[in-house]
Amino acid sequence: MAAYGKAGLISGLLITALALTAAAEAPKPAPSPQEIVDAAPASAWATIKADDLVVMKLADGAEVIYQLAPDFAPVHVANIRQLVRSGYFDGASILRVQDNYVVQWGRPDEDTTEAKGITKTPPAEYEVAGTPKTFRALPWRDAYAPKTGHIASWPAASDGSATWLVHCYGMIGVARGNTPDTGDATQLYTIIGHAPRHLDRNLAVVGRIVSGMDLLADRPRGGEALGFYKTDPERVKIVSARMASDIGAGAPSWQVMDTASPAFDAWVKARASRSGAFFVRPANALDICNAQAPLRKAP
Amino acid sequence: MAAYGKAGLISGLLITALALTAAAEAPKPAPSPQEIVDAAPASAWATIKADDLVVMKLADGAEVIYQLAPDFAPVHVANIRQLVRSGYFDGASILRVQDNYVVQWGRPDEDTTEAKGITKTPPAEYEVAGTPKTFRALPWRDAYAPKTGHIASWPAASDGSATWLVHCYGMIGVARGNTPDTGDATQLYTIIGHAPRHLDRNLAVVGRIVSGMDLLADRPRGGEALGFYKTDPERVKIVSARMASDIGAGAPSWQVMDTASPAFDAWVKARASRSGAFFVRPANALDICNAQAPLRKAP
Repeated sequence: MAAYGKAGLISGLLITALALTAAAEAPKPAPSPQEIVDAAPASAWATIKADDLVVMKLADGAEVIYQLAPDFAPVHVANIRQLVRSGYFDGASILRVQDNYVVQWGRPDEDTTEAKGITKTPPAEYEVAGTPKTFRALPWRDAYAPKTGHIASWPAASDGSATWLVHCYGMIGVARGNTPDTGDATQLYTIIGHAPRHLDRNLAVVGRIVSGMDLLADRPRGGEALGFYKTDPERVKIVSARMASDIGAGAPSWQVMDTASPAFDAWVKARASRSGAFFVRPANALDICNAQAPLRKAP
Repeated sequence: MAAYGKAGLISGLLITALALTAAAEAPKPAPSPQEIVDAAPASAWATIKADDLVVMKLADGAEVIYQLAPDFAPVHVANIRQLVRSGYFDGASILRVQDNYVVQWGRPDEDTTEAKGITKTPPAEYEVAGTPKTFRALPWRDAYAPKTGHIASWPAASDGSATWLVHCYGMIGVARGNTPDTGDATQLYTIIGHAPRHLDRNLAVVGRIVSGMDLLADRPRGGEALGFYKTDPERVKIVSARMASDIGAGAPSWQVMDTASPAFDAWVKARASRSGAFFVRPANALDICNAQAPLRKAP
């Protein structure tokens, strides 16, 4: 076995480091996407509001942190904050893992715990009207929408008359029944496969996983239809869910790259047109779900 | 909790069944994608050649079956058949799981087992010339290529001068170092996240997972850079890899939907424009990686 085991198949840090070492006289390659992230100034990062951050601890030790999107789904987000603060999710569990699709959490059908203080039938907050001035379009084509791009660091799409958050890997939506107003945010899902963009504008997208995505995506797929777990022992319990703003000292703090910053533009360009020794043919393109804004712990 | 736990968030069988029960007088909804698959005639299915099918058994009991694509990467596929038949993969292991990216298997760097009888430096079989007559284009836009579609049930893209298999969820490629001819097929990877289409035309795509994809995607992500496992005990061993054509009685047999069949056309249309009670706004579009041909065990 050649040494390519560890360096093989990927751009990024290792390859770039190797390339720099091996070819000191060669022209310096353009910075990699990761190098751009590492070098981004403080002004390129926006700290996520603690009141938009939920810390979810699971019985198997996993900690998952997610960010809410109140500007896009205010009633659903108000419900989530209320459900978190009233302890509704403490004792809920992972209900469903469907391969190449979603992980879903909440309380199973047989659980009669009441969700208190929420809007029981929220409006269908699937899109916002028009194209917000802060929408920054990507230049590449998309199968599903005339334009894709970002609003305040969220991946979005627009057709001019409306703009909506898109179902990329790690984005969070509100599960519902057949009628749109049945989604009260007591059950949430996140995307763990290729973006199921046909869900866009059909469900309320309310946030994204900020940390611990790998600890959701690596769970055993459920054996029932749609990946639901058959039995209660299969369902890993949620020990607690807390708003970061309620935790006080030691609360996690995360930042997202400002998608209006020069660093983000450079990152998108570098991801679209990979340089370095590995790539023989840059794509010169980037799908919206491969252009999700970098995240980091607040330094 | 309302009954939407089990039915919530998804089209498909359950929802359709509910809709049919609830509204016997309403006009019958258009068939769902799954109903189209279930009703497809035998002529819509192509049996995968046993000499293109590899059965891989892992030490934890997982069985993964994958299909080779000799028409696109003949030298790499010849290498894989030879590696399988010479027992190279027996005792290899899962080396790497990187979230939203790849699972990679083979032998780790420190393993000096020789790969016998293979072409050590295969050509860069990343594309075929022109647009094969059998290429059937999808009508929707794509960020990465002028056209996407299918050739003999494989997801592909074309720019007229060349055509190539695309890195969709479950597709298999050959890992390599910085130089294209370092990919000898001793290490293979499959895609477990949103399609990393920037890899297209940069690596040899040699097949797809036919069965057991969930048993690769649900593995713990590795702790080293690029998702490599740090220690040997983390690496689940491959007990055996066999060509289905060498197994004899009891060998698995799989079929893929013929992408030139009317059933496939109907399935694509139904997936692009979901009907039924759940969807309030059909996408009327389908990304190539959401249009991967249905597979089934040979009846």
